[in-house]
Amino acid sequence: MRLGEDEARARLAAHDHGVLCTVHAERGVDAVPVVYVADDGGSVGVPVDRVKPKASSRLQRERNLEADPRATLLVEHWERDDWSQLWWVRAELRFEGDAAPALAARLAERFEQYRDQPFDRVLLLRIVGITGWAARA
Amino acid sequence: MRLGEDEARARLAAHDHGVLCTVHAERGVDAVPVVYVADDGGSVGVPVDRVKPKASSRLQRERNLEADPRATLLVEHWERDDWSQLWWVRAELRFEGDAAPALAARLAERFEQYRDQPFDRVLLLRIVGITGWAARA
Repeated sequence: MRLGEDEARARLAAHDHGVLCTVHAERGVDAVPVVYVADDGGSVGVPVDRVKPKASSRLQRERNLEADPRATLLVEHWERDDWSQLWWVRAELRFEGDAAPALAARLAERFEQYRDQPFDRVLLLRIVGITGWAARA
Repeated sequence: MRLGEDEARARLAAHDHGVLCTVHAERGVDAVPVVYVADDGGSVGVPVDRVKPKASSRLQRERNLEADPRATLLVEHWERDDWSQLWWVRAELRFEGDAAPALAARLAERFEQYRDQPFDRVLLLRIVGITGWAARA
């Protein structure tokens, strides 16, 4: 049921899509779907890209993180009909600035949508805590 | 790209699974996958159930909401390979207490997993704002 830390980290590293939650002064919390890639040093990189059209190049998530570096990434496996397959991992994160080029390269390897479209920026978020749950071991 | 409020509400009402984000005093934000059902009066009901085994019957999300009633529900459609299909809706919510029995009944209709397992509780969250995005109209 509750996942051990190693298992939670392994599932986070094996996946690449989740919901990033940041602190918003008025709304309390903001949440947005993201793709991400985990590095080998205990951080994740979240792209600010130009592939999915945005209303503004300066995203609310960036403003939130610069005002308060705390964030949470939730990664889950959902199956409507078979709840014995459900699991999720939640990483507690701290925004540290821009990711190194190697992490951006890894994102471009993982998602072909990025191959011809450079990122505006890749946000680097350090994992400071991780927890997870699975319906069965 | 940006969804109008009516369209965002319609998508929220048509779906029943998302990520609920609440305010946590230390971590800043908490996030957990949930099922939900929208009522006709501008609220959603989120069950606290006994189907998916939990470590504790008193959930962190309940403690968070009782300390700070602000919450966010993110509902999204994700497709790894075709980003032209992506969309998401984010509802800004306020926790109001326990939902009326009719909303619990609707959840039990929607998810057969609940038919033989009563809820511990259904949390009522009023929608105070809604926004959304789609890769194409």
